Amino acid sequence: MAQVTERKGPGRPPGRTAQGHATRQALHDAAIDLIAERGYEQATMRDIATRAGVSPGLLYKYFPGKQAVVLELYDTLSQRYAEASLKMRPGSWRERALFAMKASLAVLGPHRDVLVALTPVLVGDPEQGLFATSTAGSRQRVQGVFLTAVAEASETLGRKEAESLGRILYVIHLAVILWWLLDKSPEQRATSRLLKLLTRLGAVVGLASRLPGAKGVMRAVDGVIVDGLLGDGTAAPA
Amino acid sequence: MAQVTERKGPGRPPGRTAQGHATRQALHDAAIDLIAERGYEQATMRDIATRAGVSPGLLYKYFPGKQAVVLELYDTLSQRYAEASLKMRPGSWRERALFAMKASLAVLGPHRDVLVALTPVLVGDPEQGLFATSTAGSRQRVQGVFLTAVAEASETLGRKEAESLGRILYVIHLAVILWWLLDKSPEQRATSRLLKLLTRLGAVVGLASRLPGAKGVMRAVDGVIVDGLLGDGTAAPA
Repeated sequence: MAQVTERKGPGRPPGRTAQGHATRQALHDAAIDLIAERGYEQATMRDIATRAGVSPGLLYKYFPGKQAVVLELYDTLSQRYAEASLKMRPGSWRERALFAMKASLAVLGPHRDVLVALTPVLVGDPEQGLFATSTAGSRQRVQGVFLTAVAEASETLGRKEAESLGRILYVIHLAVILWWLLDKSPEQRATSRLLKLLTRLGAVVGLASRLPGAKGVMRAVDGVIVDGLLGDGTAAPA
Repeated sequence: MAQVTERKGPGRPPGRTAQGHATRQALHDAAIDLIAERGYEQATMRDIATRAGVSPGLLYKYFPGKQAVVLELYDTLSQRYAEASLKMRPGSWRERALFAMKASLAVLGPHRDVLVALTPVLVGDPEQGLFATSTAGSRQRVQGVFLTAVAEASETLGRKEAESLGRILYVIHLAVILWWLLDKSPEQRATSRLLKLLTRLGAVVGLASRLPGAKGVMRAVDGVIVDGLLGDGTAAPA
């Protein structure tokens, strides 16, 4: 871990200069490393400062708390994901959604240790969790990838229908990520197997989607997702 | 919250006498209340003792730590669930699995506050989480309900097939419980809607299960579940 040198200058907001940027990055890395090692609750700001070799005061100048570190991580990873998803090729919504899921695992892969340590926060924390207000920006960026995957797929879907399907695929993607974080098999091979299975099941769903009533089921699934998970808990049920 | 009166007696193990039992229950209730209010990490053993009006020393005699409180909660709830499931009627596996899911929500319902507070632990804690070794007893009790639901269903299934289906339904049940804990809709109505949807989708799955290859898919899904979530992470893939 690189030690951080402190440079004081009046009226210089932290992180705006090249050195400020490097300091910020080093502090962020130290925080992420410590959270990955000890868990979110056990990694204190004091310990993070010690690890980075700076005073707690300097650390607080850059990050008002661990929460800020975590939100920045979400922000960085969701941006990288949005960039990676630009490589999505034309194809059916099933092909594109599978690409989007694999791209997500590829972007998150190198950060699995800290994400495993953050799983309790991601799933259970109403303030910094997956469905919290503070994380809405990152969430919408990721959701946007799935909305685009369907909207620009080779099949012709109505706008509302495409939005419903995009949201459903986004939530399935979250379930896959949670699975991957909990996956106990060596090198998470069970997640690769799960994706292959989803591909097979997707083919069945593709056939079933031509049955009468399929659109109604899709709208109903989307309605429940918005009502229970993605909405603010006040919307009337569809 | 009932105050607890301390009675000392040499050679009397905590919780074995009638008064010991009442004390134990009162301490457990105080711990659960405080965890529900503040969250697992924030509720300290000292605060729990204060809440119950006893010395920390007495609390530690009954519970060596918060972990013991949580494991006892799992144990109690899974026992109640196993008892409630004895009322399962004859029927198809789909009817019986739906009964088992509703029974689970009915047993857990009155304890939703503390379970929401414990969601980070349940999902993210390798020591006390859903798939941890320490919770294996409670987990197997609950899984057993789903195995029985299928094994004694009106359809005739092979033993291995029934086991696979039971495990898959158990994991779907866990996903429903997680959904219910995250459900932001008023009175978790989105969870009731989800169960209705699962019933509709179950009918489609019932039809699809007659297609050639359905058994193979089921075995594959079960294999991935055992490999990734339920196993000890060392089993070779099927």
